[in-house]
Amino acid sequence: MFRSHTCGELRDSHINKEVTLSGWVQKSRDKGFMIWIDLRDRYGITQLIFDEERTPKAMMEQAQKLGREFVIQVNGTVIERASKNPNLPTGDIEILVSELIVLNEALLPPFTIEDQTDGGEELRMKYRYLDIRRNPVKNNLIFRHKVTQHVRNYLSNEGFIEVETPYLIKSTPEGARDFVVPSRMNEGQFYALPQSPQTFKQLLMIGGMDKYFQIVKCFRDEDLRADRQPEFTQIDCEMAFVEQDDILNAFEGLTRHLLKEINNIEISEFPRMTYDEAMQRYGNDKPDIRFGMEFGELNAFSQHKDFNVFNQAELVVGIAVPGGNSYSRKEIDKLTDWVKRPQVGALGMVYCRCNDDGTYKSSVDKFYNQDDLAKWAEATKAKTGDLICVLSGEKNKVRAQLSALRMELAERLGLRKPNEFAPLWVVDFPLLDWDEETERYHAMHHPFTSPKPGQIELLKTNPGEVKANAYDLVLNGNEIGGGSIRIHDKATQALMFDYLGFTPEEAKAQFGFLMDAFQYGAPPHGGLAFGLDRLVAILGGQETIRDFIAFPKNNSGRDVMIDAPAPIDDAQLKELGLKLDLK
Amino acid sequence: MFRSHTCGELRDSHINKEVTLSGWVQKSRDKGFMIWIDLRDRYGITQLIFDEERTPKAMMEQAQKLGREFVIQVNGTVIERASKNPNLPTGDIEILVSELIVLNEALLPPFTIEDQTDGGEELRMKYRYLDIRRNPVKNNLIFRHKVTQHVRNYLSNEGFIEVETPYLIKSTPEGARDFVVPSRMNEGQFYALPQSPQTFKQLLMIGGMDKYFQIVKCFRDEDLRADRQPEFTQIDCEMAFVEQDDILNAFEGLTRHLLKEINNIEISEFPRMTYDEAMQRYGNDKPDIRFGMEFGELNAFSQHKDFNVFNQAELVVGIAVPGGNSYSRKEIDKLTDWVKRPQVGALGMVYCRCNDDGTYKSSVDKFYNQDDLAKWAEATKAKTGDLICVLSGEKNKVRAQLSALRMELAERLGLRKPNEFAPLWVVDFPLLDWDEETERYHAMHHPFTSPKPGQIELLKTNPGEVKANAYDLVLNGNEIGGGSIRIHDKATQALMFDYLGFTPEEAKAQFGFLMDAFQYGAPPHGGLAFGLDRLVAILGGQETIRDFIAFPKNNSGRDVMIDAPAPIDDAQLKELGLKLDLK
Repeated sequence: MFRSHTCGELRDSHINKEVTLSGWVQKSRDKGFMIWIDLRDRYGITQLIFDEERTPKAMMEQAQKLGREFVIQVNGTVIERASKNPNLPTGDIEILVSELIVLNEALLPPFTIEDQTDGGEELRMKYRYLDIRRNPVKNNLIFRHKVTQHVRNYLSNEGFIEVETPYLIKSTPEGARDFVVPSRMNEGQFYALPQSPQTFKQLLMIGGMDKYFQIVKCFRDEDLRADRQPEFTQIDCEMAFVEQDDILNAFEGLTRHLLKEINNIEISEFPRMTYDEAMQRYGNDKPDIRFGMEFGELNAFSQHKDFNVFNQAELVVGIAVPGGNSYSRKEIDKLTDWVKRPQVGALGMVYCRCNDDGTYKSSVDKFYNQDDLAKWAEATKAKTGDLICVLSGEKNKVRAQLSALRMELAERLGLRKPNEFAPLWVVDFPLLDWDEETERYHAMHHPFTSPKPGQIELLKTNPGEVKANAYDLVLNGNEIGGGSIRIHDKATQALMFDYLGFTPEEAKAQFGFLMDAFQYGAPPHGGLAFGLDRLVAILGGQETIRDFIAFPKNNSGRDVMIDAPAPIDDAQLKELGLKLDLK
Repeated sequence: MFRSHTCGELRDSHINKEVTLSGWVQKSRDKGFMIWIDLRDRYGITQLIFDEERTPKAMMEQAQKLGREFVIQVNGTVIERASKNPNLPTGDIEILVSELIVLNEALLPPFTIEDQTDGGEELRMKYRYLDIRRNPVKNNLIFRHKVTQHVRNYLSNEGFIEVETPYLIKSTPEGARDFVVPSRMNEGQFYALPQSPQTFKQLLMIGGMDKYFQIVKCFRDEDLRADRQPEFTQIDCEMAFVEQDDILNAFEGLTRHLLKEINNIEISEFPRMTYDEAMQRYGNDKPDIRFGMEFGELNAFSQHKDFNVFNQAELVVGIAVPGGNSYSRKEIDKLTDWVKRPQVGALGMVYCRCNDDGTYKSSVDKFYNQDDLAKWAEATKAKTGDLICVLSGEKNKVRAQLSALRMELAERLGLRKPNEFAPLWVVDFPLLDWDEETERYHAMHHPFTSPKPGQIELLKTNPGEVKANAYDLVLNGNEIGGGSIRIHDKATQALMFDYLGFTPEEAKAQFGFLMDAFQYGAPPHGGLAFGLDRLVAILGGQETIRDFIAFPKNNSGRDVMIDAPAPIDDAQLKELGLKLDLK
């Protein structure tokens, strides 16, 4: 037996007990006549004591040689600590060691195993197994487990069935790039790893399974942006015989449950906002509504003067920065530089100070009088002491730019509080999205999303205007889930594929099985998928997903710990009927 | 709203209620003046009634046109049924329909959606979404969900943390063949899909995670035997600071919990048997101990006479078939033919009848007298009325042959009762396994398994004799789980790789990260993995895993429903730096 107790559980009620503990040497203080060792395991830290008077000489010498991260087992007696440590749950006691066994030695770790480590990202990833010993990473993984357990138990209690769908499926060119898996038994053919179990969950609905969920890995071979992973985890859900409201209510219930159980926050009802409204008020389809700074559209109050920049703009729009009048000219110039960075892309920024005496002072005083600026203040809800920041240009671009500025300023002003939670449903997304590169419309959600009733005809005349039964769940400015009511009849699905540029042959080759299935009694259905990695990070009050994943990949899709991907044997390639053909 | 109730919940307490139901038309009886329709959903069947007196003519006509598997929604009133059906939970009531909406039509399904279907395996797989509508398949999937929920909640309550390990890892030639995934971002390099999360769970132990589990898909590119799948699901577990007994106790606890919760069977303690004993008593390392028919070794009582077949055999061994003396000569000849089939491979079979009068009558009476045969009876525990079947030959082969016969006869005699459960730990497996083909030893479990303490030296002189800290959990003659205590120091691991024929360079290239990790304070650890597909099937009283998997693949590794694998575009191949090189 390696241990009778963990390193986190001994209290003064255990005093005089003989115990066995195992763990890692966190640190050692050697006063010569006395040695204290902090012994660490997953559950906590317990202090061990060796001293000249009570410890045999050989053991004292042995203890002196213990290095950081050595794995040891000790037998000993729980004794009361002379100087107690109120910050440690085990701080009332220590172990007078009677036997010391070194289970494994350890090289000096390449970074400190402390909450604040001296190891950089790269090093921590290479030695991820050491990084996981650190409380922040360890606790994140345990937190993730806790969240997924709550999700599974909640959905199971609500009658959802977790069904495992296959990982070796078929490649389809729609959407992102697939990872493919060559088949040895079917030479020259490939499986694909799922980007999501979308078609399978729809088939389960056609199979009568009614309420499905699955916590499942999905795969996307994309060029990785920061904080994207080639493999990621979804809480994938689908329901049959439902309308949009049934789905929103079901998963609002789940999210409310998580916020209550995990964060101890009660939220009665989630607000709902259309996509159009979100874009107008926040310039963003995933607005952070924990704070104001809503967009004020200023066209009516700015396009009647000689300021050509505004006159030529499709949209002139501003936000009020709370207390922003305190910014120096230099600080405002820096803000202007910030919005002009290529990542944001604005051409410039107009500002207007709301002075304490009720007057306004803008960077465009040449063109606008106090009455005009008062209207700006009214439209942006600016108060005395605020600063109004105004951008102008092409509607979609300027909204994105001002939204970026709004988020940046909120971050700087401390308005994005990690322990405050503001969920929001964004509904009525457009069905299609114009892709500049391919010069055609793509499905904004995916090609299985149904258009709003009665809008199918619009597809022919004004496809960009068609709205979908599609919705996103937004939490604190992050999309944590998204879904739609699906098409469930062959004719509409065929029409959609047609509009998306599939020939009937392509549609049949790739999705024939689904359209066939629609002919055998498909019920109305819809669903939603949460991004688990992000959901967990946000519930944990963080926004970086990487530290909630045990073994993440870097931005080149590499696992630097195991050094994958890697070349494979020629024999292996030959068996698969493949040859390298490097560029 | 598509439904106010499901098709399984209405009772006589609902009479006179207005309800809305949705579902599939299971069947329709049309008497002209009256139409009954069985409406089905996941939860049950409810009878709908339309009649000339109370139903408008247009709706009667509409109802007449409803075909099998049409998806409909009805509004109506719950009324008392004239002739009640006590076999149906909803059999007391029916719905007098006031509104009928056809949600989707259906083509005639290619097989009947009934518990006993007329559809063959192939057809059912192609239309798996229809197959899932059938109770046996639907209930198996719900049962699987129930089992996994119990597993997760039990292990979580015991302090295990579910950690997701990556799916895109590195290919290693040890073990079965990997599925590989070409990397576009790292051209010419490949990921592999995990055969198990073995090395990652060991790294989690080194990371201090202590008690880990994961229900996880694993992948093996093997030529498929019946009832094997290229992707399968494991309950993967690992613990640190444990000895073998700690692991056996932990997972005996889980299995006992499942048998109690799922099957309502209490089993106090699981018997433990060494591998050597299992081979001697049952000729098999996963014996079904629900019945006797244990092996009786007959060398001492058969090699003193002139019967050369026995004299030359390494092992002469028999089993007593209960009541087998009732078999006719023709039936025994058939048994002999059965053991001589190439799948079993015996050269012949000797038998001995245990007559009611206490005498024996054998097929080798020329060589053996009644005293000899009495000893056979004693060794095989044969009783009056039994038949002793004796095989002989090379020890390992003859044990496998007699074990096959034992299982076949038990099946025929109805001794393998699906609702009776007999778990068994088989322990002390050999460390190595001689592979005839490559003429070298392979790791019987895997190369991370530790030899029994003190047996490392034996590796040099008599490697086949070295026993491992490896164990299997056997249930009703099936291996449902297996595991081992792992090596946790670099020197022993390097030695193992050396004995297994790895050069130091190969070992470093493939498992360097693990051996490095061993140097930074690796605790003693070990674990176990259950095959979930089989576990679920056996708890469900069945042995075929396929119907417990939502979308299984066929014996050629194909998904015949979605038609995968399939060719991919040349452009896709080019992007991956690959070319087809078909044989």
